Amino acid sequence: MSSLRFDCTTNDWVIFAPERARRPHEYRGLCPPVDESESGLCPFCPGNEYLTGKEIYAVRGINPDPSRWLVRVIPNKFPALRIEDQPERFEDGPLFRHMGGCGAHEVIIESPDHERTLAQQPVEHIERLIGVLHFRFVDLLRDGRFQTIVIFKNHGERAGTSLRHPHWQLIATPVVPRLLRLKHQVATDYFDLTGRCVYCQMLADELAFGKRVVAENNHFAAVCPYASHVPFEMWIMPKTHRSSFADITDQERRSLAELLGSVLRKLHVALENPHYNLTIDTASRGDEDKRYFLWHIRILPRLTTPAGFELGSGMSINLVLPEEAAAYLRDTPEDSAT
Amino acid sequence: MSSLRFDCTTNDWVIFAPERARRPHEYRGLCPPVDESESGLCPFCPGNEYLTGKEIYAVRGINPDPSRWLVRVIPNKFPALRIEDQPERFEDGPLFRHMGGCGAHEVIIESPDHERTLAQQPVEHIERLIGVLHFRFVDLLRDGRFQTIVIFKNHGERAGTSLRHPHWQLIATPVVPRLLRLKHQVATDYFDLTGRCVYCQMLADELAFGKRVVAENNHFAAVCPYASHVPFEMWIMPKTHRSSFADITDQERRSLAELLGSVLRKLHVALENPHYNLTIDTASRGDEDKRYFLWHIRILPRLTTPAGFELGSGMSINLVLPEEAAAYLRDTPEDSAT
Repeated sequence: MSSLRFDCTTNDWVIFAPERARRPHEYRGLCPPVDESESGLCPFCPGNEYLTGKEIYAVRGINPDPSRWLVRVIPNKFPALRIEDQPERFEDGPLFRHMGGCGAHEVIIESPDHERTLAQQPVEHIERLIGVLHFRFVDLLRDGRFQTIVIFKNHGERAGTSLRHPHWQLIATPVVPRLLRLKHQVATDYFDLTGRCVYCQMLADELAFGKRVVAENNHFAAVCPYASHVPFEMWIMPKTHRSSFADITDQERRSLAELLGSVLRKLHVALENPHYNLTIDTASRGDEDKRYFLWHIRILPRLTTPAGFELGSGMSINLVLPEEAAAYLRDTPEDSAT
Repeated sequence: MSSLRFDCTTNDWVIFAPERARRPHEYRGLCPPVDESESGLCPFCPGNEYLTGKEIYAVRGINPDPSRWLVRVIPNKFPALRIEDQPERFEDGPLFRHMGGCGAHEVIIESPDHERTLAQQPVEHIERLIGVLHFRFVDLLRDGRFQTIVIFKNHGERAGTSLRHPHWQLIATPVVPRLLRLKHQVATDYFDLTGRCVYCQMLADELAFGKRVVAENNHFAAVCPYASHVPFEMWIMPKTHRSSFADITDQERRSLAELLGSVLRKLHVALENPHYNLTIDTASRGDEDKRYFLWHIRILPRLTTPAGFELGSGMSINLVLPEEAAAYLRDTPEDSAT
C-alpha cells in the first residue's frame, strides 16, 4: 500500500511506494530498481499484451487484431499511487501526518516499435500520441480527488528508465505539489503587479531577443530559457495563452507534433541521442482558467549529475549558457536522426 | 567568468559556470564532466601538491615536510563562484536579471589516503576534519558578501564525484537560496504558532517514538526522518538547539565525530559502500541566532534515480519506509567496515 507523508520542514508531500521496492538488504550494491519482466520478454511489445495489466485505452487502425495497436495505455505494474485508495488524512502525532496513496499511475506505450525513439517517429504518430496523452489527462481530471496530473517521459537509464521500449507515464496526485504551488504563486504575484502572464511575457521577450530560440512555428516556440537549470534545457511554449494542457486545440496539436519532433531530432543529432526527461507542466485543479500560468513542455537532458551542493541548497549549477546551447541546436540539421 | 541568473518562474538563482564546461559538441555521448588531472596523477595525493592551486589551509603534524599534511584545503580548480567577482546585479530586460559570480569554492582533502573512505577513518581524524570544516566556515563568514555557506561531500560517481580521492567541498553563495528561505519560513511559521523550534520538536518526537532512530550519544542523534525523501536518508541532529554550525562546541565536535563515523560504518556495511551525498544544513547570514532553525547533517544515499515525475512535480517517490531503513541500519554491525 502506498501512502504520502508530509515533510514538516519543507511542506512537501513525499510518496512512499514500498511495493515498488526491493527489501532493504537488496539495496546492497548500486543497481537501480528494475521492473523488467522476469521472462526477459518486453511487456510493451505487440504479442506480449498478456504480461501487462488490463488495457485502459488504445488507438487501433482498421485491423481488428488486438495486437495491432498504435498507442496503448496500461496501468503501471508497480504504481506509485492507486485509484482504489482514498485521500484520507491521519495524524501520527502533532508534527507527523500521512494520507492514503490515492491517485493514478498509467503507462502510455508510445508505439509498437521497441527501438524507434520519439525523435524518429513521423509527425502523424507524434500527433496521435499527443491526442492520447490529452485524452487520458482530460479523462482523469473527471475524478475530483486528483489535484494535479503530471505527464512525463524518461528517455534512457540516466533519466530513470527501467524499460527500454519507448513509453510515457502519467501520475495523478491527491495534493498539489509544493513546487507547483510556488510556481503558481510567483506567477500570481507577477500578474497582480503587471496584469500579464509571466510565461507569456517571458516567451515574448525570448522571441524578441531571438538568441535563445531553437525553433518556432505558428503556434509554438522552443527556447533554451534565460535561467536554464541544466545544459540544453528546452521549453516548448504555446503562443496563445492557455493555463491547461486540457485546452490544446486540434490545430495546436498538429503544430506541437511538428515542433516537438523537430527539436527532438535536433537534440538526437546534436548530442547523440542523449538521455532526457520530458515533463508537461500544466495548471493544477482549480487554476485551469486563470490568466497567470501557461502550460508548457520542459525537456531536461541528463548530461550532468546534481550533487551535494544542489541537494543542500536547491540551487543548480549549469555549465552551458542557453545562448550557446540554442545556437548549437539551431545549427544542427534534423535529417540524420531518422 | 561565472554569473548567476534569476529564474522568474521559481525565484531561484541559477549559477552559470561555463568555464567548468566542455564545449557544446563535447556533450555528445553521456560522460559526465571530469576534472581528473590530465597527467593521470591524483592532484589530492601527497607529493602532487604542485598540481593544485595555492593551499588555503592545512593541518600538519610536527613533521615540517610540506607533504606531511593531515587535512588540506585548496581552491576548486573549476570554481562555480569566485572570491574575486562582485555581487553586482544587472538587468537584461524587465524579466531577466543576472549578477556577478561572487562567492567561494573550496575543496577540503579529507586525508592523505587515496583509498580510505570517511567510514574507515578513526574518530580522531573525523574530529580533526570537522574542526577544519568549522574553521573554513567561520573564516568565510567574515566576508559580508557571502549569504549562505554550503558544506557538502559527494561519495561515489552516482553522487557526482569526479575525483576518487576522498574530499569535501564548500561553496559560499552571494544570495540565500530559495529552498533555504523556504525552510526558514516554514520553521518561523511553526515558531510563531508554537513558540518552539520545529527541528528540536521533530527530534524529540523521533526520540520518543524510537523506531526511526539509528544511533545516538550525549550530544547527537541519527534518525531516518518520518518523511525521508530517499531510501536510507539519515539526519544527524544536535540535541542542543543551535541554528548555526558555527556554534558547535569542542565537546560536541568529538561527539559528532563518534556518531558520524558510527553511522557511516553502518551504511558502508549495510549497503556495501553506497554512493551518497552529505550536506551540512545551517542558518544563513542574519539567522544564526534565531530560535527557529537547528543545524543538522543530511546523508542522502544515491540508490535510485529521480526521473520525470520528480522533476515535473518536485515531489519525491521513496521506496523504503524510514522505519525499515532505521531498523536495518540499527541491526547492522559496524566492525566489518574497517
